[in-house]
Amino acid sequence: MGFVGLMELFSNSSGYAGNPVEEQDMIARALIKKGKKVIKINRGDPAVYFKTPKYIVDAYVKALRNNRSYYEYFYGAQELREAVAARYRRMYSLSLNVEEDIIVTNGVSEALIFLNNVLMNRGDRAVMFKPFYTLYINLLEISGGKAVYGNYNEKDNWLIDLDHLRRTLRGMKRLKYMLITNPNNPTGTVLGRKTIKEVVDIANENDLILVSDEIYDEILFNNAKFTSLAQLAKGTKHAILNGASKNLDSPGFRMGYIIIPGDDKVSSGLKELVVKYAQMRLSVNTPAQYAVAEGMNNIKEHRKAMSYMVGEMADRANFTYKLINESKYMEAVKPNGAFYVFPKLNIRDMKIKDDTEFTRRLLLEANVQVTRGSGFGSKNHIRIVTLPDKNIIQEAMDRIEGFCRKNKREA
Amino acid sequence: MGFVGLMELFSNSSGYAGNPVEEQDMIARALIKKGKKVIKINRGDPAVYFKTPKYIVDAYVKALRNNRSYYEYFYGAQELREAVAARYRRMYSLSLNVEEDIIVTNGVSEALIFLNNVLMNRGDRAVMFKPFYTLYINLLEISGGKAVYGNYNEKDNWLIDLDHLRRTLRGMKRLKYMLITNPNNPTGTVLGRKTIKEVVDIANENDLILVSDEIYDEILFNNAKFTSLAQLAKGTKHAILNGASKNLDSPGFRMGYIIIPGDDKVSSGLKELVVKYAQMRLSVNTPAQYAVAEGMNNIKEHRKAMSYMVGEMADRANFTYKLINESKYMEAVKPNGAFYVFPKLNIRDMKIKDDTEFTRRLLLEANVQVTRGSGFGSKNHIRIVTLPDKNIIQEAMDRIEGFCRKNKREA
Repeated sequence: MGFVGLMELFSNSSGYAGNPVEEQDMIARALIKKGKKVIKINRGDPAVYFKTPKYIVDAYVKALRNNRSYYEYFYGAQELREAVAARYRRMYSLSLNVEEDIIVTNGVSEALIFLNNVLMNRGDRAVMFKPFYTLYINLLEISGGKAVYGNYNEKDNWLIDLDHLRRTLRGMKRLKYMLITNPNNPTGTVLGRKTIKEVVDIANENDLILVSDEIYDEILFNNAKFTSLAQLAKGTKHAILNGASKNLDSPGFRMGYIIIPGDDKVSSGLKELVVKYAQMRLSVNTPAQYAVAEGMNNIKEHRKAMSYMVGEMADRANFTYKLINESKYMEAVKPNGAFYVFPKLNIRDMKIKDDTEFTRRLLLEANVQVTRGSGFGSKNHIRIVTLPDKNIIQEAMDRIEGFCRKNKREA
Repeated sequence: MGFVGLMELFSNSSGYAGNPVEEQDMIARALIKKGKKVIKINRGDPAVYFKTPKYIVDAYVKALRNNRSYYEYFYGAQELREAVAARYRRMYSLSLNVEEDIIVTNGVSEALIFLNNVLMNRGDRAVMFKPFYTLYINLLEISGGKAVYGNYNEKDNWLIDLDHLRRTLRGMKRLKYMLITNPNNPTGTVLGRKTIKEVVDIANENDLILVSDEIYDEILFNNAKFTSLAQLAKGTKHAILNGASKNLDSPGFRMGYIIIPGDDKVSSGLKELVVKYAQMRLSVNTPAQYAVAEGMNNIKEHRKAMSYMVGEMADRANFTYKLINESKYMEAVKPNGAFYVFPKLNIRDMKIKDDTEFTRRLLLEANVQVTRGSGFGSKNHIRIVTLPDKNIIQEAMDRIEGFCRKNKREA
């Protein structure tokens, strides 16, 4: 092929491929095979800890028995798009055009891939906030885009540093979109109405498409008040990302969706092009779409399931938070949504170089798998998933504490 | 954003997005809404015409009842990779490393996306054959790659023109991979052992990665003998694409896989990088993976289902072929696999410019949806799906014949 070495054979963009959340999975699997009791608190998978509600599974089974194994419409099943529209009307008083505004995707990951494919030419920029969800940056860079960083400020409860954002964007060229995460992964922060309003203003000032990943919008606790971007962004070019993985406790169904509510020229063009990408993978899993439609439509069962699940999640998150802040080796901001805590390591108190060494050795020596903060753009933090039973969280935190103590730097 | 027009806002690669198979779907839906009886023979979806075998649906239901709604391992479920390995051992005497050689994907489309992402830098080339499956080219061009075309020769029963291929590749730079489709979509041709051997030689001569899309490898009839690339490519860098959509009659499950059997440096690098892309979409639909594993493992039920289904498919394909060749307005090569016929239109006998006008007006005026040949790289052909009941095929062909006659050019 005239390619001398492997470096030339493989694409440049492959250098960006991968996911820090899963980069230690093969090591963890090898340890488990050897009989080690590995505690995996690296992946935000609620279905490992909470059974997917029976009424949703029943709807899935019904769809299968009804022979729904054909390719579904590339836009997504009519029933599912109607259910999404009804959800947004009910929860956020948003009026959506079912025929055009909602496109069903293979999880939010595919929605992000579509957005980057549609928007980014090599060298274009998108505004991200640190700490970011790991995949945002990899997917952006694979598409040829570059990130410009705003900050969630740890000293201000991980809220957005608006002054810094305004300064950063001033005069910046080739900006295409800005992506916020609310509730946040990895910090568990819930952005307030006022902050979102400011972000909308900044998007307008900079003529940016504003995107909000709201996949945890029903996983709220500690009296957090959630506002959807959809409630504040009328007249602004924007998109909402959401799905069934977290709120409907069914990550393995791989059901996401993107909502583009506007009918301005940019929003219309965006819809038209996202759909063209959707055509190229023919269909999303068909029976799962009917399960998720029922998951949203059966409000009574859904509320019952959420009331139990979110109650437990709150309890476990607060418990993890308490244990973390009892340790001398780390400290965290209290989460109010999602199911993560993102403590800062007091790395200088340990004979450990950084979060990468910390997480690698923690897995090998204490058999606890967490994700390194640098994967989210925040060095010397770790992300801990707060979903397990409290006795497992206690065990994990005991192991982490023991590991830190074993590696503490003598004064 | 400093982008003046919409042309600047959206990416250049978006110009390649879309799928000719589905480009008329919105018009078809509008016609159906108006009460028109549209015959859709544009999409190769067996599950619309043949119920997915009950034993597969039962296994899917069992997986759901067993709470398999978590994120599966990004490589794919162990059980499914073992089932794929067993299938290839059984059918093609191929010995695969379950831990490394098989990666489960969201249909073959995602496998193609991964391959292009891993291999193509802007300006790199891949060898495709005309007529090609529509998405090959779009996905290649979106990744920045360019196609170099070999030919399936219509005058030689759509077999590969090997001399032309050798000439075309001579001295060509930046070639990365060559993609064959066997059995073929859109022509239904099954390549013989000798042809594949020659293609393997040409791949080696040109130091190319050889990829074979074998998604129809059990849909064979008219005494066709199929040879998998895997049987002939030992020592050659290669990959096999396959999935459950056609052989297991379950396209809506979106289950595909890529097999990279080699352990040379290129194959190992390819595996490693494909997996990194797989990490970024976390998981493929989990319960469907267990359904497909059972679909492959339960050989007795599978054979029973295939014996009926492929018998029917053969009958319908041969019936469609017969009707086509009774028409003065088109002629086709007889298919021996898959479920398509790809006739050449005698366009000069009609007052119609080309296949694009033909398919558009055929849908609007006769309410039959087929796919234009130019979407597959072969102008003035159409692809007809041969899956429906014979009475529907008869009705479709009557309508097509009437449409041609109405538009015939007077002598």
